[in-house]
Amino acid sequence: MPFADRLADAVRLKNTALCVGLDPRWESLPRAIRERHGGATLAAVAAGYEEFCGRVVDVVAPLVPVVKLQSAFFEACGPEGMAVQQRLLDQARARGLITILDAKRNDIASTATAYADAAFAGVRLGGRTLPVWDADALTVNPYLGRDAVEPFLQSARAAGRGVFILVRTSNPGAGLFQDLLCDGQPVYEHVAAAVNNWAGENLGKCGLGDVGAVVGATYPAELERLRQLLPQAIFLVPGFGAQGGSARDTAAAFLPNGLGAVVNSSRGIIFAFEKDSSTWEEEIALATRVAIDLLARETPMGRLGRA
Amino acid sequence: MPFADRLADAVRLKNTALCVGLDPRWESLPRAIRERHGGATLAAVAAGYEEFCGRVVDVVAPLVPVVKLQSAFFEACGPEGMAVQQRLLDQARARGLITILDAKRNDIASTATAYADAAFAGVRLGGRTLPVWDADALTVNPYLGRDAVEPFLQSARAAGRGVFILVRTSNPGAGLFQDLLCDGQPVYEHVAAAVNNWAGENLGKCGLGDVGAVVGATYPAELERLRQLLPQAIFLVPGFGAQGGSARDTAAAFLPNGLGAVVNSSRGIIFAFEKDSSTWEEEIALATRVAIDLLARETPMGRLGRA
Repeated sequence: MPFADRLADAVRLKNTALCVGLDPRWESLPRAIRERHGGATLAAVAAGYEEFCGRVVDVVAPLVPVVKLQSAFFEACGPEGMAVQQRLLDQARARGLITILDAKRNDIASTATAYADAAFAGVRLGGRTLPVWDADALTVNPYLGRDAVEPFLQSARAAGRGVFILVRTSNPGAGLFQDLLCDGQPVYEHVAAAVNNWAGENLGKCGLGDVGAVVGATYPAELERLRQLLPQAIFLVPGFGAQGGSARDTAAAFLPNGLGAVVNSSRGIIFAFEKDSSTWEEEIALATRVAIDLLARETPMGRLGRA
Repeated sequence: MPFADRLADAVRLKNTALCVGLDPRWESLPRAIRERHGGATLAAVAAGYEEFCGRVVDVVAPLVPVVKLQSAFFEACGPEGMAVQQRLLDQARARGLITILDAKRNDIASTATAYADAAFAGVRLGGRTLPVWDADALTVNPYLGRDAVEPFLQSARAAGRGVFILVRTSNPGAGLFQDLLCDGQPVYEHVAAAVNNWAGENLGKCGLGDVGAVVGATYPAELERLRQLLPQAIFLVPGFGAQGGSARDTAAAFLPNGLGAVVNSSRGIIFAFEKDSSTWEEEIALATRVAIDLLARETPMGRLGRA
């Protein structure tokens, strides 16, 4: 089944398009987990991340359709951290979640294919396919151009997976290159035009493609314009919650039927507890439900249940 | 010592700025290595890469100042591949080589810091610094803008390391976004201007900064113009050899004194043998010497020994 349809089914099933971001940071983990693992080595930190994120996955799996792993924090624990990233992706998939690996990969030709095969179905070797990350979707940086993005699309399409291309990021200095005006349009709108073409190449029954756009929620007016420029692309919207975007700021990312966007919250959910709390899982579940309710009230996502 | 001065010393010591790229591919390894490791699992492939690249490092360490690891091929072997990447970086450093991790990382704020700390001195945890990749330099994708690049600079500078920012890549489709004209200049020249500013912030005694530019050798005229725009940046020039750039094409990357550029060759050196060859290490050594001679004859690198 095409990625966009799998995602749409998962969103309809959970009646929300909230994505929980797994961005673990040692100093923010619950005290009991930090004490149990000690944190004296990177392997110990990785073990703490595995326990914490694994328990978060168990908490949120009944509530949301998608989780997003921020690869940097697992890489920062070295090879042991990458092994934890792999097991968490396995666990999330086993719990029925759509998984996004947020690794912002980019390279050219066969090197891009190596990243892409690792991200999706696996590396082909002597007639077999050996899985590595086995994620449902990967974030990709477009700066290297056409033949740097296309290997990711080919690999994703061969396995029914998706690619989210960085179009407009949510950081204050994003404009340094993204805002440069070319033929009256900022660079990020040129990237958006390419994403729209790629998205149109392989539409699912839901009318959306397997190439989406990462668009920050910190610029709501741009979000609205990009939604017009990209009618067939799924938006992955970071920046909701801790990065300052409100639920209402994300509304323009959605199509009128409530599909077409995934809204990510990381710190605002996974660290929604006091460090000493022994009931942190309940607090994370509560923060997840609050975010779902807010998005249902403030965005077209609220229409999902009525379809 | 600043990164640029360490690199300049290493280049002067070896009397060449050739960088050997470690881009292992299973099907291209010497037959004896493939047979020994079998390649039935990703761990077996990773073990083959470790033996092969380790022996290449031993062969080239007396001849060249720098090696560049292409992270995609190690990531494609999963966590075991990342462990091999780590041990090869350790080995290269122990052999006195400057190490470039070609991972094209990019993200914002504290996430960028996580990648950067992993790449350079290590992750700070409870007053200690735990090394991960411990590379001398990292390639970074600039699309996310100012506050996405700066965490990499801060982390690199705290440890005397360097950053190579993708300015103009060597692939045929690079122009899709890099060539867009903004105020009469293509996007990649705007990126170059930012790189020049960053490079000027922390110059070594050799007059070069710790922020360099990745500029493909497949566009020699652009290389010349970028050298003028970026007088204080070290150029990392891929595309020599297998990607179609000639030694002469790289000449414009150098300063008149023969410093200022590192020219990478990957496949053209590490796979310069027949698969059945039992003397592949000698053939790699020969290909390395041929490339060094070519560069000395065709570029200002030939003036290094005369300074």
